[in-house]
Amino acid sequence: MTREPLDTGADLRELVERLYPLCRSITGDGVRATLEILGEHIPLDVHEVPTGTQVLDWTVPQEWNIRDAWVKDPSGRKVVDFRESNLHVVGYSVPVAETMPLADLREHLHTLPEQPSLVPYRTSYYAPTWGFCLAQDTLDALPNGDYEVRIESTLDDGHLTYAEHVVPGEVTDEVLVSCHTCHPSLANDNLAGIAVAAALAQRLAARKPHFTYRFLFMPGTIGAITWLARNTERLGKVKAGIVLACAGDPGSPTYKRSRRGDAEIDRVLEFVLAGRPHKVLDFSPYGYDERQFCSPGFNLGVGSLTRTPYAGYPEYHTSADNLDFVSTEAMEDTLATLGEAFSVLDRNRRYVNLSPYGEPQLGKRGLYDSLGGRSDAKTAQMAMLWVLNLSDGEHSLLDVAQRSGLPFDSVVAAAHALQGAGLLKE
Amino acid sequence: MTREPLDTGADLRELVERLYPLCRSITGDGVRATLEILGEHIPLDVHEVPTGTQVLDWTVPQEWNIRDAWVKDPSGRKVVDFRESNLHVVGYSVPVAETMPLADLREHLHTLPEQPSLVPYRTSYYAPTWGFCLAQDTLDALPNGDYEVRIESTLDDGHLTYAEHVVPGEVTDEVLVSCHTCHPSLANDNLAGIAVAAALAQRLAARKPHFTYRFLFMPGTIGAITWLARNTERLGKVKAGIVLACAGDPGSPTYKRSRRGDAEIDRVLEFVLAGRPHKVLDFSPYGYDERQFCSPGFNLGVGSLTRTPYAGYPEYHTSADNLDFVSTEAMEDTLATLGEAFSVLDRNRRYVNLSPYGEPQLGKRGLYDSLGGRSDAKTAQMAMLWVLNLSDGEHSLLDVAQRSGLPFDSVVAAAHALQGAGLLKE
Amino acid sequence: MTREPLDTGADLRELVERLYPLCRSITGDGVRATLEILGEHIPLDVHEVPTGTQVLDWTVPQEWNIRDAWVKDPSGRKVVDFRESNLHVVGYSVPVAETMPLADLREHLHTLPEQPSLVPYRTSYYAPTWGFCLAQDTLDALPNGDYEVRIESTLDDGHLTYAEHVVPGEVTDEVLVSCHTCHPSLANDNLAGIAVAAALAQRLAARKPHFTYRFLFMPGTIGAITWLARNTERLGKVKAGIVLACAGDPGSPTYKRSRRGDAEIDRVLEFVLAGRPHKVLDFSPYGYDERQFCSPGFNLGVGSLTRTPYAGYPEYHTSADNLDFVSTEAMEDTLATLGEAFSVLDRNRRYVNLSPYGEPQLGKRGLYDSLGGRSDAKTAQMAMLWVLNLSDGEHSLLDVAQRSGLPFDSVVAAAHALQGAGLLKE
Repeated sequence: MTREPLDTGADLRELVERLYPLCRSITGDGVRATLEILGEHIPLDVHEVPTGTQVLDWTVPQEWNIRDAWVKDPSGRKVVDFRESNLHVVGYSVPVAETMPLADLREHLHTLPEQPSLVPYRTSYYAPTWGFCLAQDTLDALPNGDYEVRIESTLDDGHLTYAEHVVPGEVTDEVLVSCHTCHPSLANDNLAGIAVAAALAQRLAARKPHFTYRFLFMPGTIGAITWLARNTERLGKVKAGIVLACAGDPGSPTYKRSRRGDAEIDRVLEFVLAGRPHKVLDFSPYGYDERQFCSPGFNLGVGSLTRTPYAGYPEYHTSADNLDFVSTEAMEDTLATLGEAFSVLDRNRRYVNLSPYGEPQLGKRGLYDSLGGRSDAKTAQMAMLWVLNLSDGEHSLLDVAQRSGLPFDSVVAAAHALQGAGLLKE
Repeated sequence: MTREPLDTGADLRELVERLYPLCRSITGDGVRATLEILGEHIPLDVHEVPTGTQVLDWTVPQEWNIRDAWVKDPSGRKVVDFRESNLHVVGYSVPVAETMPLADLREHLHTLPEQPSLVPYRTSYYAPTWGFCLAQDTLDALPNGDYEVRIESTLDDGHLTYAEHVVPGEVTDEVLVSCHTCHPSLANDNLAGIAVAAALAQRLAARKPHFTYRFLFMPGTIGAITWLARNTERLGKVKAGIVLACAGDPGSPTYKRSRRGDAEIDRVLEFVLAGRPHKVLDFSPYGYDERQFCSPGFNLGVGSLTRTPYAGYPEYHTSADNLDFVSTEAMEDTLATLGEAFSVLDRNRRYVNLSPYGEPQLGKRGLYDSLGGRSDAKTAQMAMLWVLNLSDGEHSLLDVAQRSGLPFDSVVAAAHALQGAGLLKE
Repeated sequence: MTREPLDTGADLRELVERLYPLCRSITGDGVRATLEILGEHIPLDVHEVPTGTQVLDWTVPQEWNIRDAWVKDPSGRKVVDFRESNLHVVGYSVPVAETMPLADLREHLHTLPEQPSLVPYRTSYYAPTWGFCLAQDTLDALPNGDYEVRIESTLDDGHLTYAEHVVPGEVTDEVLVSCHTCHPSLANDNLAGIAVAAALAQRLAARKPHFTYRFLFMPGTIGAITWLARNTERLGKVKAGIVLACAGDPGSPTYKRSRRGDAEIDRVLEFVLAGRPHKVLDFSPYGYDERQFCSPGFNLGVGSLTRTPYAGYPEYHTSADNLDFVSTEAMEDTLATLGEAFSVLDRNRRYVNLSPYGEPQLGKRGLYDSLGGRSDAKTAQMAMLWVLNLSDGEHSLLDVAQRSGLPFDSVVAAAHALQGAGLLKE
């Protein structure tokens, strides 16, 4: 099956725009529709896990679907309408068909008093309730009287849906890229991340990568927990990972370290981001699914890449996280950053100098400029000397690049030249 | 026996004032009188160690007592008088009853030329001599002629006196609080320390502490050496300790690290003092009895808390270290600081997350707010997530508080809640 | 045989001036003549290693000697003349006797276009070629026409020549001081280094040193590789070393760390240089023969001392590195710095406190001021307390000096006093 390429920023934006209207939650048909569209770009293994399945300390909940929902004021006018924005209904709201005075209704209405024109995003996955989200301005304008309330949702035994996409590498050791797929009409959080991940998968497949890259599209928390529960034996193969979210807002990139703090992925991302505006944060057990990957029992080398970090922008979890908030350039930059990071990760080997006593004579192997006395040693020669000096089995090429200050590509080229001359082995 | 409470700053000041006139030294009745007054507030085990007892590399010296001492000028006027201030006599002066010209007397007179109005504090415990201390101004005004000199002291076989007070805890592991009791009329050094220690013992007893707290009131150097020599087998039980001195001057607190530098007591004191004016000093083998506790053979986790550090104020070891120099507020603050530090120390446990794979579902245990989507995670919830994430047996609750930036009390409360839910064990 | 003393800066300068005109290379009679003059000051073991000898990854090359070389312009005037400066001939030039147009000759001419008045220094040890070095200004003035070119050199089987000088110490553990001897008329690089090394050897011999000091005078790269190949079994005895170069330029001292970065020699040099203008650089695998000593297989604790570092001054490897560039004061300062460094190294022992439980009673051993109460503890007493406290077998006297902030000499004196009193053993 031919897949649609995601080659340009416009392609990324178009994908985000198609996914935006869908009403996603941690289960349900909105997720399935999302994965179907995504499947037009990259092949997906879609997993359906039945309600009631025990996953680690959790249980897969009932499946939630919603057809319609609204609130009518005493005059019969729809003042809150799910069809206008799926943010208007609290996620996992149980069905309701009642008429009640405004005072009673208020207990089910959520607003943002400090951002009175915005609609908040709220959910209640594990406590059966119902509710509507609306602008404080809307609420303030509601007259007293009896309101008709309708939520046409279903909460039944069904499935939790997530998908995997694998880019096979030279080795079966894996790098995870995980995106949450459970947020409804929130563009940066996380449609931008989903789009960037899909484009990244296409680019990785185009170059045969060293590691195997496994992309995970799954609902936050319960999805990661489900995947971890079902893949415990695979985890020994996981060498690194990135939780990708908020990939499109106009802020500069933020890397949040894994719980280990000095995992290889941490060093790679910090290396790639150095020299440009960015932030590096220490791990904290809050945010996206790095919480699960970095729980102490797993403690995987998984960090998180965002633009502005989790909950760090006023549009976060509001109706202002819309298509206007997402920048094509930011998505392209996030994509390029991860492309570069994985290129470093893929080539970051440890070598052993096979001629470690004194310098080997590079000149007789054609690796060294023959005319001595000049002080302008070339980058290529310096890179060879550095690789030889630090290739003691303990230092990686990233170590060499960092200690020498030389470009990573030069260090890799030097290692390959030296390996070609029989002076280095992996 | 009912003990007098030391509840208020006024109580602390009154105790300092009662102790101030007594002529203490490393042995003798001044120490006994001091301990008797102290015993009105906390029960004391008073130990009398005979002269000649070998203690580590040292020998308990003869006991020194003094009834009177003076210098009369050629006109018969007392120009230096022990009864005015016990600082006037060099500690451990041998008896003398002579008449001598001023020129000869000068060799026995000690002044502070740069602080000409102050009387210095001097001792000569281990070299038999005698001497007087006086203001340079006084010395400068002395006429030539013959001076009558009298020191009515005794240096005989007797005892070295020190006292212990124990606040029993849940466990027999001990925390030491050590104060030197050998200085005569010097208020900050160390009557303020003695008073604060006694009040601290009362407060600790009022809350049943986790550790057993052992308070030591003993002469500097020889007292600590004597206690260490007699308690070598107990030292394995000593988890931490504080040498408390200069607890009442107006300076901000100074914590001097143990020789280890990263002992638990070091981390606790630095944590408690953070965010307010204070100093932290590295260990040095000079100062108070931390010198002995931190000698390389013992190397105990014992730091030192003072206000202005040892020898760091111009009043140090002079007649200006008097009752006016000691601030009630400073004593109260020192008391509060140690109370807080020991409260942290007592609760600074290491836990193990019993559900370490992924996050446990806090919501179903009533530990987590059910409404999702909001970004204002509460302190209590963050504390639970942090405790779960770091409870791998390696991190203590203090580690959690420091890494998370959350209040220690919140972290402890989270640990207790999680333990109550069966998610954590100690 | 009596050796000429190098007592004064004038002696150092005179030695540099005598060595300056000689045409040194990595082999040949210029090196031998250099060592002969050096031998007037310190006895040398001169080693001759035959051409073709395998040394580590390298082979000792043919021996190069040169009698004369010149270029005559179309009018028969010598425009480049080896007899004016040996820098005019590319080192290891094969013999040539040809006439050729300027256009063809240009391929064999080396200049420094950005320093048009200076003659560069160039070599081609391992690729047979020939060439001349000249000022860009000279080149620009050459008329077109046919040039007569003559290099009267020989490249034959012969020997590589290097020399050793040993100052025996109390122990056979060795400290290396290595100087390259292969540069022709370049004064700072490395005649100043050779002169300073010779004077240092004389001074070390005058005080019986603790370590055995081995001075190596050998051609760069191939010389160090030859020595290492022939002394592999000795290397276990090498406790430290310094590669000494550029010892006379007016810059302040630069210490380049060994590959280990925290070898004892690194700590000693940083200690000695602290508090005066200087630079400390991390190891890099480029520069002088520290490249070989610090190759990963050997990884010796060998750093490098220069004034302005390798290639760090515009006169580097040009005719401007002449006698005027070398400062007598700088050579004296380099000599003094190394003298002090080796004095610290020689005395930097680890001791064990034989009375580690509490402080030993210094007073009864006459080591402590008997009058107590004063706050101005003397340096000698503080040094004794520090040495006792840190002499746990893990800390060296340099550690004590650094942690205490006390002068190293005071710390050493304290250790000797304590050892004399039976309180310390090595």
